[in-house]
Amino acid sequence: MAEPMTDDERRAFLMHGTRTGKLATTLKGGGPHVAPIWFVLDGDDLVFTTHNSSLKAKSILRDGRVAISVDDETPPFAFVLIQGSTEVSEDLGALVEWATKIGGRYMGADRAVEFGRRNGVVGELLVRVKPTKTVARTGISD
Amino acid sequence: MAEPMTDDERRAFLMHGTRTGKLATTLKGGGPHVAPIWFVLDGDDLVFTTHNSSLKAKSILRDGRVAISVDDETPPFAFVLIQGSTEVSEDLGALVEWATKIGGRYMGADRAVEFGRRNGVVGELLVRVKPTKTVARTGISD
Repeated sequence: MAEPMTDDERRAFLMHGTRTGKLATTLKGGGPHVAPIWFVLDGDDLVFTTHNSSLKAKSILRDGRVAISVDDETPPFAFVLIQGSTEVSEDLGALVEWATKIGGRYMGADRAVEFGRRNGVVGELLVRVKPTKTVARTGISD
Repeated sequence: MAEPMTDDERRAFLMHGTRTGKLATTLKGGGPHVAPIWFVLDGDDLVFTTHNSSLKAKSILRDGRVAISVDDETPPFAFVLIQGSTEVSEDLGALVEWATKIGGRYMGADRAVEFGRRNGVVGELLVRVKPTKTVARTGISD
């Protein structure tokens, strides 16, 4: 039977390795959209960057609600589902700071600065997700 | 630079190992929802089962539009994004048939029948996603 994660287990699960978040938003016509994102945690907030021309950026700027799924794709399977509101910033200093942390997580510490520079530029948005509802379960197929 | 997948590469990517789909739907209030699903391909259609009490089932029965993301969470990263419409069936024979295929994919051939019986029951819905738009890219971080 599926079991809930503790808060510490959930944070560790979200930050495990290069697990990506799958970010869902609602498109202009009301249909759903979902795409992978690189993110890090800041407390319980999820922080990521996206270019202002992306569908996810446009959806977030129109309707700040998002949902994110992070899962373990191997038996016995586990997942965290987050629904939240968003805060968006274009501050370049903050963009470089977080893009560097995110680059370090996904590409390794030796490439953190390179990816911080790549994604910490004008046109990118820094998005902070404030969770309003969280479900975290492990042992799904047990 | 990211590169598009060929059709054969995309199908092989979607069916690789126990990779899950992340299914996005739009909730009654217009907000987004996303959760992992087990699925198999039938041609280019994605087939999965879900209980009629789940949020995803309720969303699909109200508004048949879905989006699905399947990704490789390791460098250089890759993903397939699918937007589609859905067809829903409660036919028990078809439910058992597909739940057995899906169980075999995610839990192994020796447990396919067990999971076919678990998920091929009254109350479960068989959902077929007919893709209307597909994006498939590999080498994202290159």
